[in-house]
Amino acid sequence: MTDKITEIVETIAKQARQAALKTAALTTEQKNAALMRLADLIEENEALLLNENARDLSAARALDLAKPMIERLTFTSERIAGIARGVREVAALPDPVGEELEQTVRPNGLDIRKVRVPIGVVGIIYESRPNVTIDCAVLCLKSGNACILRGGKEAFHSNTALAELISRALRDSGLPEHAVQLIPTTDRYALNQLLKLHEYVHCIIPRGGEGLIRFVTDNSRIPVIKHYDGVCSVYVDKAADPELAVSITVNSKAQRVSVCNAAENLFIHEEAAIKLLPDIAQALAEKGVELRVDDLAAAILKDMKTVPATEEDYATEYLDYIISIKVVKDIDEAIACINRYGSGHSEAIVTEDKTAAQTFFTGVDASTVYHNASTRFTDGNEFGLGAEIGISTDRLHARGPMGLRELCTYKYVVHGTGQIK
Amino acid sequence: MTDKITEIVETIAKQARQAALKTAALTTEQKNAALMRLADLIEENEALLLNENARDLSAARALDLAKPMIERLTFTSERIAGIARGVREVAALPDPVGEELEQTVRPNGLDIRKVRVPIGVVGIIYESRPNVTIDCAVLCLKSGNACILRGGKEAFHSNTALAELISRALRDSGLPEHAVQLIPTTDRYALNQLLKLHEYVHCIIPRGGEGLIRFVTDNSRIPVIKHYDGVCSVYVDKAADPELAVSITVNSKAQRVSVCNAAENLFIHEEAAIKLLPDIAQALAEKGVELRVDDLAAAILKDMKTVPATEEDYATEYLDYIISIKVVKDIDEAIACINRYGSGHSEAIVTEDKTAAQTFFTGVDASTVYHNASTRFTDGNEFGLGAEIGISTDRLHARGPMGLRELCTYKYVVHGTGQIK
Repeated sequence: MTDKITEIVETIAKQARQAALKTAALTTEQKNAALMRLADLIEENEALLLNENARDLSAARALDLAKPMIERLTFTSERIAGIARGVREVAALPDPVGEELEQTVRPNGLDIRKVRVPIGVVGIIYESRPNVTIDCAVLCLKSGNACILRGGKEAFHSNTALAELISRALRDSGLPEHAVQLIPTTDRYALNQLLKLHEYVHCIIPRGGEGLIRFVTDNSRIPVIKHYDGVCSVYVDKAADPELAVSITVNSKAQRVSVCNAAENLFIHEEAAIKLLPDIAQALAEKGVELRVDDLAAAILKDMKTVPATEEDYATEYLDYIISIKVVKDIDEAIACINRYGSGHSEAIVTEDKTAAQTFFTGVDASTVYHNASTRFTDGNEFGLGAEIGISTDRLHARGPMGLRELCTYKYVVHGTGQIK
Repeated sequence: MTDKITEIVETIAKQARQAALKTAALTTEQKNAALMRLADLIEENEALLLNENARDLSAARALDLAKPMIERLTFTSERIAGIARGVREVAALPDPVGEELEQTVRPNGLDIRKVRVPIGVVGIIYESRPNVTIDCAVLCLKSGNACILRGGKEAFHSNTALAELISRALRDSGLPEHAVQLIPTTDRYALNQLLKLHEYVHCIIPRGGEGLIRFVTDNSRIPVIKHYDGVCSVYVDKAADPELAVSITVNSKAQRVSVCNAAENLFIHEEAAIKLLPDIAQALAEKGVELRVDDLAAAILKDMKTVPATEEDYATEYLDYIISIKVVKDIDEAIACINRYGSGHSEAIVTEDKTAAQTFFTGVDASTVYHNASTRFTDGNEFGLGAEIGISTDRLHARGPMGLRELCTYKYVVHGTGQIK
């Protein structure tokens, strides 16, 4: 059995490598034609998709899976239409392949250009949402990559049906059929085997909970682009506009608490704390947010219900209606707190002082820093990347929301006239 | 003992992280002042450096190290002057930090900029050349990174003396003293400990032989940018200029055989083989290059001394006066051979046909592709990067010669006017 799985996974990887050499050379028109065909096929096969999805859903109910998980797993006519629309949106995005990033002509006449090219073969490991199958396939295809998809067992039938539509779209458009392949088993052993095949697979992107990401990182011989947690913070400066201090803090924390770009901490300048913290705290409490506070904040909020914050709290990703609050003596302390407790995801300063904003931007070590805006905007769509393949909390290769460009590397293209050394 | 080493390495890593938060915010002038001070100190301390180097050399001779290794280890007045000159050259390079890579204003008014920033803490693991201590320190410093250096035991006294000069330059210029730190032991255990500290160290760059690179890759919890072997090829097309076919092949193979960008393979179009291969082979033989050939090439070169090539030969990095030759039926076969046997380093096509050159550029999967120029140009200096920190054979983050820009990541800097979601 394990020998058989090893063979299947290795065959898929080798086929992907061969397909990638071809997809790298496809024209924009060829790629877009396949995407448009796929969008049509998704719409035409709504009944099939709903049927296959129903098989996953009944298995999920039989296993008594948690409601939010079943919700994520569920297809509706509307969601299927949304998936098709998303495919057409990616087709409409500019093609990143072939973009010239830099050019120089050397004194010896060599013309050296840094040109964007696909990474090659991208492996994507994900959990229950079946729409990820399409999102990742179309982003990889548009950026000229071949991809190997390994979805979660809860969505197995939905994923298999979607992968079959992708294969048909590739065949119908004359593209390499192995440009997108789904691993036909959710056995963990297959994943382990895939993570060893660095000769054929050039990059692994895990999408899911921390357990999955840690498993992949610990076991991969292939470079992994990770998406760890978001311990994001809002800093309310002494020069903060009072209304923005309230609206940005409340939106960052409570607009949707279960996401990685939601704020977990509020750091507030001591001068602002006296004037603004009661209003901010009141607005948070009205949204049902528990306030974990340091001594100074507790004193200022003595008429409200608060909980003492521990050191640990400031480094915790609650993903819940809880916020940790700390009064700081100046912006430098705020920056130090963010660099100490934060996870380098998204951090906001609320201030009318442009110099303070600049100090914050330079000093805070994070993928995205905001001045007078909510942390909730860290997202591929909000950034205009079209769809996103993930949000990187790494520093190498890609940081923050990853779109088509981040699915590319570059090569140096050098034109000479006989130069030798 | 091991507890003590663990503590030392962890202290160094923590200090580096704190220093990196400061070096990221330094102005170009501050960084350049420290570099110019360092160049002066190197010149002023020539006698000290020669003395410390003599200690390494006498130990090396006592251990009967190989001559090329002793040669690499040796300082002379001229080399020391060259090191100081190299430092001033890096000071003169443009500062990559703060460069805006992309900018977009979203429909909601958010102004989103992708800005180049340092990676953070870079660990550099290298072998016997002590000049690497300075090269890496100055490149990291100029790009706003803190670095941790771990040199080889053969150069321990030379490295320690250089590191002391770097510390003095940092102190004299008011820069964070821990921006550059040398691990004060060459115990392998210390390296193992360093490779675990992903919380503080963001990137590892090993420079040295394949054994070192493999050890680092296999043991690191920190992302590694690798520099593996170079199995580079020249393809002589049917439309090749006869003189360039000879000069580029000979230069790529034999100008210096021990380097990663030297060619190991010649693929030649069958029409060109009949006309040009005898002259190319003759010129290679005159340089003392052994010819390992397929059957067709053997037939064409029947009057010359040749050796039959095995499949293995085409995938071998000889680093020696040996070349593998294969006659191909067309450019597609040449591209397929390069993608199959090559290591994705540097590949050249010799042709007067621009369409063929374009086909080669698109089809060949390598960090650098050349049209009518020698593969030997893949090098930071030749590419105008100033010094180089290495040549990446990876695809993620950096590919090919790595200079100051490749020692950076980016952050998104977002200006708002109160936007919430």
